[in-house]
Amino acid sequence: MEIGLEELLLAARNHGMPLEALRYDVTPVGLHYLLTHYDIPLVDPDGWRLELGGDVERPLSLTLADLRAREPVELVATMECAGNGRALLEPHVVSQPWLQEAVGTGRWRGVALGRLLDEAGARGTDVVFSSLDRGVEAGEEQRFERGLTLAEARGALLAYDLNGAPLPPQHGFPLRLLVPGWYGMTNVKWLAEIRVTGEPFAGYQQANAYRLRQAEGEEGEPLGRMLPRALMAPPGRPEFPPGPRHLDVGPCVLEGRAWSGHAPVAAVEVSCDGCATWAETELAPGPSRWAWSSWRLEWDAPRGAHELCCRARDEAGNEQPLAPSWNLGGYANNAVQRVPVVVA
Amino acid sequence: MEIGLEELLLAARNHGMPLEALRYDVTPVGLHYLLTHYDIPLVDPDGWRLELGGDVERPLSLTLADLRAREPVELVATMECAGNGRALLEPHVVSQPWLQEAVGTGRWRGVALGRLLDEAGARGTDVVFSSLDRGVEAGEEQRFERGLTLAEARGALLAYDLNGAPLPPQHGFPLRLLVPGWYGMTNVKWLAEIRVTGEPFAGYQQANAYRLRQAEGEEGEPLGRMLPRALMAPPGRPEFPPGPRHLDVGPCVLEGRAWSGHAPVAAVEVSCDGCATWAETELAPGPSRWAWSSWRLEWDAPRGAHELCCRARDEAGNEQPLAPSWNLGGYANNAVQRVPVVVA
Repeated sequence: MEIGLEELLLAARNHGMPLEALRYDVTPVGLHYLLTHYDIPLVDPDGWRLELGGDVERPLSLTLADLRAREPVELVATMECAGNGRALLEPHVVSQPWLQEAVGTGRWRGVALGRLLDEAGARGTDVVFSSLDRGVEAGEEQRFERGLTLAEARGALLAYDLNGAPLPPQHGFPLRLLVPGWYGMTNVKWLAEIRVTGEPFAGYQQANAYRLRQAEGEEGEPLGRMLPRALMAPPGRPEFPPGPRHLDVGPCVLEGRAWSGHAPVAAVEVSCDGCATWAETELAPGPSRWAWSSWRLEWDAPRGAHELCCRARDEAGNEQPLAPSWNLGGYANNAVQRVPVVVA
Repeated sequence: MEIGLEELLLAARNHGMPLEALRYDVTPVGLHYLLTHYDIPLVDPDGWRLELGGDVERPLSLTLADLRAREPVELVATMECAGNGRALLEPHVVSQPWLQEAVGTGRWRGVALGRLLDEAGARGTDVVFSSLDRGVEAGEEQRFERGLTLAEARGALLAYDLNGAPLPPQHGFPLRLLVPGWYGMTNVKWLAEIRVTGEPFAGYQQANAYRLRQAEGEEGEPLGRMLPRALMAPPGRPEFPPGPRHLDVGPCVLEGRAWSGHAPVAAVEVSCDGCATWAETELAPGPSRWAWSSWRLEWDAPRGAHELCCRARDEAGNEQPLAPSWNLGGYANNAVQRVPVVVA
């Protein structure tokens, strides 16, 4: 696996969550994964308005103070990039080269979008969310936009706070969409406009990007909810530059988190022999249905080199595969994590 | 230029400052560059103590409350990784693959180390700073440690706040060293122990890493203060994946920041023709001697493809070179930034 300059330019500005941060129920700001499509825009909160219009009875134009004056909702939610796992695919897919760390859990606070849609008297079937970040993609000048059905949008949050403070610029200040259980691209940052329409959104980020395809030209399947994934906080001590983890012989605790956007996590299993045999871990639910669950397993580490693996299954029966399934965009690779360790 | 898995493992967890964040005098948390050598340690602030001992008259053992009870000092300082620019070197150097974004400016608050050294009655010539982060490097179990002369240490800050809030875990909670003007590795995070000694520190991170060498086995020159560098906030609109920036024909403002750890910035020049001709920019000092200066230049952008460049010179006469100078560790590459743009 080798990556070139174009991808390094992305990797230098975007970042995953260092996996030792799996220890936190809620990820501290600066450790949550971050992907920015274009530039982080500079938004003057005094001049900013959220425009909610289109097929509605009463269009709304709301200041940040208007939004903060409404009944607040708080939600702890895990968010993962749809491209998480991309750099582990063969053949190589050129885009943000995530390994497995593109995840984080935030305590988001904001306004229930369902209430605002009611207030505006939404009549259509679909909703388009437009951001303030602009760029050139696929030869086209565009701003980042995504759509949801009206029913999906009713369950979303318009978040103005993260972990008890106003959104940092990189997480969408002053307002972002938060759709619990969905991959990151759905959660439009720097939100400026919500438009109710009578047809599914067909913009670039919906109809071209973020689809599961085997070849160019295929219509493909849209990406939506997060597939199940378990991650282990790498035990023991690291190497620099990265290599196997170093553990002492004897009892230790293996632990981590797991989530699925489809259904609650039903089980997390760990293998200490490279996926040959599996043991079920103790599972504890997270602070909300939409936050990751915790898991732990005691392990009596024997001398030698081992490959630790973990995999999650959700209540809808989705389970992580042992090997990746390739697609053109390098999306949704939730193959099991493998952590090489040396016990001495 | 191609990077492999070992470097991608570093690039996925460490991150630079997206260059549009050059717009902020003080870098918001989460946008400041971040390099973690080993794992981010989990520190219980109640059990934590700073031990100041060695060749002193009165050893100190201080809680966080003890430190906060002392007279506070606040300092806005720019910090850059010594490896910034590494990935642009040829032949390729394997380590954290920074392009040019490994920088940030923080508003740090803490205790003047000179005062604490006086309080303890420091008698030696040198000081060793020991961190809580542990790992295996060069085949050796170690914690991150760096040394300074006693004179250098007297000018340092022990910082417990960043941008008005307690240090986030990834920036060294509960306490870190801040040595204004020095490359990042000097600014030991998760500080646990300060030891006054009678001889220069000869640990791994001082005697082996962070030295300018042409070949293994050379003693080399230690890295210390930051060389001058100017960076431009990339103008216009980005491409995804990254490509040239897109600008409109006509007047625009080119702007950015510049710093040097050796002396105040004397001048920043910009070239709009790939370093053929240069124009001097308007320069404005930063909020402190140790914070970056701002620079700006109006440019009447003509249609076509151009390469924008910027370079800084400090009052000690250090100037950025047009081409990198290679060294084994890939340190201190402060060659001029080059920003391709398309004006249409």
